[in-house]
Amino acid sequence: MAYRAAVVGGSGYTGAELLRLLAGHPEIEVSVVTADSHAGASVADLYPSLAVAYEGLTYEEVAPAELAGLDLVFLCLPHGRSQSIAGELVDTVGHVVDLGADFRLPVDDYEQWYGEQHSAPELLDRFAFGMPELYRDQITASQHVASPGCYPTTASLALAPLLAAGLVESSGIVVDAVSGVSGAGRGLKATSLFAEVSDNVNAYGLLTHRHTAEMELALSHVADEPVQVLFTPHLVPMTRGILATCYARPVAGVSLDTGGLLAGYRDFYAAEPFVHVTDGSPSTKATMGSNAVHVTVRYDERTNTVLAIGALDNLTKGASGQALQNANLVLGLPEATALSTIGLMP
Amino acid sequence: MAYRAAVVGGSGYTGAELLRLLAGHPEIEVSVVTADSHAGASVADLYPSLAVAYEGLTYEEVAPAELAGLDLVFLCLPHGRSQSIAGELVDTVGHVVDLGADFRLPVDDYEQWYGEQHSAPELLDRFAFGMPELYRDQITASQHVASPGCYPTTASLALAPLLAAGLVESSGIVVDAVSGVSGAGRGLKATSLFAEVSDNVNAYGLLTHRHTAEMELALSHVADEPVQVLFTPHLVPMTRGILATCYARPVAGVSLDTGGLLAGYRDFYAAEPFVHVTDGSPSTKATMGSNAVHVTVRYDERTNTVLAIGALDNLTKGASGQALQNANLVLGLPEATALSTIGLMP
Amino acid sequence: MAYRAAVVGGSGYTGAELLRLLAGHPEIEVSVVTADSHAGASVADLYPSLAVAYEGLTYEEVAPAELAGLDLVFLCLPHGRSQSIAGELVDTVGHVVDLGADFRLPVDDYEQWYGEQHSAPELLDRFAFGMPELYRDQITASQHVASPGCYPTTASLALAPLLAAGLVESSGIVVDAVSGVSGAGRGLKATSLFAEVSDNVNAYGLLTHRHTAEMELALSHVADEPVQVLFTPHLVPMTRGILATCYARPVAGVSLDTGGLLAGYRDFYAAEPFVHVTDGSPSTKATMGSNAVHVTVRYDERTNTVLAIGALDNLTKGASGQALQNANLVLGLPEATALSTIGLMP
Amino acid sequence: MAYRAAVVGGSGYTGAELLRLLAGHPEIEVSVVTADSHAGASVADLYPSLAVAYEGLTYEEVAPAELAGLDLVFLCLPHGRSQSIAGELVDTVGHVVDLGADFRLPVDDYEQWYGEQHSAPELLDRFAFGMPELYRDQITASQHVASPGCYPTTASLALAPLLAAGLVESSGIVVDAVSGVSGAGRGLKATSLFAEVSDNVNAYGLLTHRHTAEMELALSHVADEPVQVLFTPHLVPMTRGILATCYARPVAGVSLDTGGLLAGYRDFYAAEPFVHVTDGSPSTKATMGSNAVHVTVRYDERTNTVLAIGALDNLTKGASGQALQNANLVLGLPEATALSTIGLMP
Repeated sequence: MAYRAAVVGGSGYTGAELLRLLAGHPEIEVSVVTADSHAGASVADLYPSLAVAYEGLTYEEVAPAELAGLDLVFLCLPHGRSQSIAGELVDTVGHVVDLGADFRLPVDDYEQWYGEQHSAPELLDRFAFGMPELYRDQITASQHVASPGCYPTTASLALAPLLAAGLVESSGIVVDAVSGVSGAGRGLKATSLFAEVSDNVNAYGLLTHRHTAEMELALSHVADEPVQVLFTPHLVPMTRGILATCYARPVAGVSLDTGGLLAGYRDFYAAEPFVHVTDGSPSTKATMGSNAVHVTVRYDERTNTVLAIGALDNLTKGASGQALQNANLVLGLPEATALSTIGLMP
Repeated sequence: MAYRAAVVGGSGYTGAELLRLLAGHPEIEVSVVTADSHAGASVADLYPSLAVAYEGLTYEEVAPAELAGLDLVFLCLPHGRSQSIAGELVDTVGHVVDLGADFRLPVDDYEQWYGEQHSAPELLDRFAFGMPELYRDQITASQHVASPGCYPTTASLALAPLLAAGLVESSGIVVDAVSGVSGAGRGLKATSLFAEVSDNVNAYGLLTHRHTAEMELALSHVADEPVQVLFTPHLVPMTRGILATCYARPVAGVSLDTGGLLAGYRDFYAAEPFVHVTDGSPSTKATMGSNAVHVTVRYDERTNTVLAIGALDNLTKGASGQALQNANLVLGLPEATALSTIGLMP
Repeated sequence: MAYRAAVVGGSGYTGAELLRLLAGHPEIEVSVVTADSHAGASVADLYPSLAVAYEGLTYEEVAPAELAGLDLVFLCLPHGRSQSIAGELVDTVGHVVDLGADFRLPVDDYEQWYGEQHSAPELLDRFAFGMPELYRDQITASQHVASPGCYPTTASLALAPLLAAGLVESSGIVVDAVSGVSGAGRGLKATSLFAEVSDNVNAYGLLTHRHTAEMELALSHVADEPVQVLFTPHLVPMTRGILATCYARPVAGVSLDTGGLLAGYRDFYAAEPFVHVTDGSPSTKATMGSNAVHVTVRYDERTNTVLAIGALDNLTKGASGQALQNANLVLGLPEATALSTIGLMP
Repeated sequence: MAYRAAVVGGSGYTGAELLRLLAGHPEIEVSVVTADSHAGASVADLYPSLAVAYEGLTYEEVAPAELAGLDLVFLCLPHGRSQSIAGELVDTVGHVVDLGADFRLPVDDYEQWYGEQHSAPELLDRFAFGMPELYRDQITASQHVASPGCYPTTASLALAPLLAAGLVESSGIVVDAVSGVSGAGRGLKATSLFAEVSDNVNAYGLLTHRHTAEMELALSHVADEPVQVLFTPHLVPMTRGILATCYARPVAGVSLDTGGLLAGYRDFYAAEPFVHVTDGSPSTKATMGSNAVHVTVRYDERTNTVLAIGALDNLTKGASGQALQNANLVLGLPEATALSTIGLMP
């Protein structure tokens, strides 16, 4: 018998991506999909890609109380919104997997980076940080999961082996990343218009992008000491995909070379179904629509710098795929159920 | 036990797409993948998207004789090449599914449209025309299949219900279609360069595109009389997707309206797993990576014209997905095995 | 001494394109640029491309009365808006060049295709239809100009020589066209988002697109008899560019061939600075940012159909470039002043 | 009377861009355009964008000796090729402006980064390094110019004010840049195909990209001490545009803030016609088709890092526009002749 799930906030891109993935899941069925702003519309109208798979499914306006008894609730909401309803869910549904930012950070970090008070700090302990490769034990031991952001997933998995092994300094790390525009969601903004995005690249959120906090959280967890990151995101003319190019300084006294670093990465990720360590240069398209992360690493002797690169699909491994990976974990299902490692290429 | 398959000419885009789809097929395993020009290269080098799924798989240079005994051979070769090796395969392997043009047309049509002699006309009868929605009986009764082209599949499925019902004239039909550039394959041509394709649209093959012959073949089959089509393809800046907008003149005396036409389309395709009739306007993205075809129809009273539109992914339903659909049919497997109806959207 | 001009509604794409072109005009200076919704914002904030050329220029909220005395007023407004202010301008400014739809059509046609009453029908006679290649005498004889739409300009110039020469039937004409998304303007709509437009094509406005009326107007003018067109526009993933592929039936008894048609086109457009007749297949990118139109023509003996193709940049020759061409004409300046024939390619 | 110019290697993208710009130059006329591989083809066939402006111009196969007497020769050749013909030109033509890499670097640097011997080291002193903003005096004092690469121009202009003022360390500088694919030229490579580039980002030339040497050259010149840079280029799905995001460490003891840095940048570039210092975040599209460079700078107190960003069009300011700027300088013409600061946006 299938687990019954709701997708709350299902009219945005992460919601649509969850529906796409869940259509192929043998153990989870979508019982409810909500979207206040599109209540009454059919899923097929917004996403004709889902028309055949979800014939007749309609967005509903649903109160949290009505979700009680479900096995699984995915929250795909703008930050600040999950806080306001999670209290009604954490004890009435089987598992909450939150794709938003509300339960990822310690309350102080949240309030610093988001510039507003957290309205449900007492719930933070109920959620594990949902990056399975670095927090699998915590996730399987937890009832609920806060799935991390797209940039933090990319950068943390690209850098983790270095910090776990103590090979690079915990400060002076630079993460320079590019993202497809689907990361900005389906909201209507001039900066998301085709005519503004095509043939264009620009950096945004200079010095202050909120995902910095999650990178520092995950990497500090791995390093077992505070890690500091300067993060610069860029928007590039593609729909899906994140590529993070990361720079770190070796700790004094270690002797590094690229071959050794690549071998270390392969060891570190040997058991991971979704992390692919490559000698080549990762490309986002290789991961499109899949839950895979491709990473590589180099040591530059000339400038004494370590370069690490990660690539993934921001809507899949960077959001809904990872959320489903987390759901599989908390439900005790095989972690890779309904998740692919194959990108749509070309 | 799985069927053992070869993908011949597996370094091009239709070959890569077949490998992508076959990785999810529970009954077919890829035993050999050949590519003369890339023999010795790993599949992962050309298509890092396939690195995890096909770790270690390498392109081989294989003589047809070495494929003897396989259950299934997909031929993904430029036109003219399948003719030269099919003779060695048709009696030594279980089934050949040819994705090229060599066995689709009667010999006269082939020689007229391709401007060269057919070197193996005696084999033409061994291949069914692999458009399941219009030729399913012939396919299941056949050992081998010639899978049709991307444009003919789109246009024929968009127009078939009209011609089957005798509602439109068999001459004066116009098919105006656009295609993503993957349809031109992975060959190196200036017209396939990003810098030439982006921000650009142009028509090509004016009056003489070879796919015209397949459209006329399929539609004449449906109409049971000779059908004539003027076909204009265009290249647009996207990787995948074909959209065909078709114009036909009602036969004198019939009374048409859009509602009735849509109802007729729904009847015609009621049992088809991959054809979605929509009241809306089909979009290619809704089908990306899937085997779905979306179609609609309109009657314009003002100009007394019927408008029919079809959309699909040229690499999937337009090539490798349909080839796999045909393979499933000749193997006696459920037709939709390993084929999705869900597009990657956004 | 320079002519003083206002750009009303200058925050949209046609307004920005006008500013781009006017920056290079030796005889026109931009005195005022208005945009109610962005009043107070600097032009450089919305269009950093214009930052150096228009340092300090700011959008204003301006009443029509305040424009009195200017030599030239360009109106870049949504349809229906020009009607409401033109009355205050036609006798107080030198020339109005309207880029909107309000003064292009006879009142009956306007009300039929736009589904609303025209509020200033008495002004229609004050405006010439601003397609210089077909209406130059009317434009130079007029004080004000209604610049036509992007699709009508493309299709009319592609088909005009055929209808002028009486070679094709005046009914049964099909115009199948594709457009870059800038044609939809800078308004915030889901259908203009990068993530929805990229890798996507779809038809829209099926059977009822309002530009049909302008095509029929211009072509009837050329043919000197009523012409009927079925027009299907499509959205394709590019920012600028329109390509119209047009189909027409020869009149009975004429003998056609492609060479003769091309020669006829070259004669027809021999004196035109912006129309380029090509033996090849026109591409939109060849015209990007320029005021050029590229056209070709073919006769298909097999189906007895004439194929005509036109390409241009929808924001330049399809809107702001043509508006400036019209302004040059009414001001008595050389028609090509500040307008280029060279596209930005690649 | 106009100066007579040749464009050698005019079938590639930098050659076409030069032709585009030169068509608007009142003092330079194109007498010869050569392209060995396309000799006999018309410019209009390769670049229909130039059809009207250069009607009848045909690529020639021309020996260097035949160029003797011309006022100006632009060399748009792959690296290594200019060396072999420059000897025949430097004393027989007025000025050579080389867009390739052959005369940019000291011989040792050239041989280290290009891995091959320089065949004409004795000519290196005859060429100034053509980055006018940093080397104007040398250019105007020189007969010939070696125009620098696209990445070095972007990164050097983004970082120059910091190094000129001694505000940042000369080591530990990171330049992380993205480029449109036209930077790879019109050569036929799988990595330049639309189907491989679209929806894709990847880094390339890891640790070893040759443009590193030019950045270090220009920045060492500005800093008056050796500067070391780690440079990572990325390919993104657009045709034109480079954006460089640069990271540098403040020298000990200086007190920095963003406002002061921006003011310093404005001072440094106050007299430059093509450098626009912005408080915002530069975008490549704002510069498309223009010779403008947009730059900004930030100080991050949290990580004690300076962030500098530059954006330009790689074919214009990054190649042919800058070459023409250099030509204007050596000819004694106004530096900005035929060069625009306005980008094609949207």
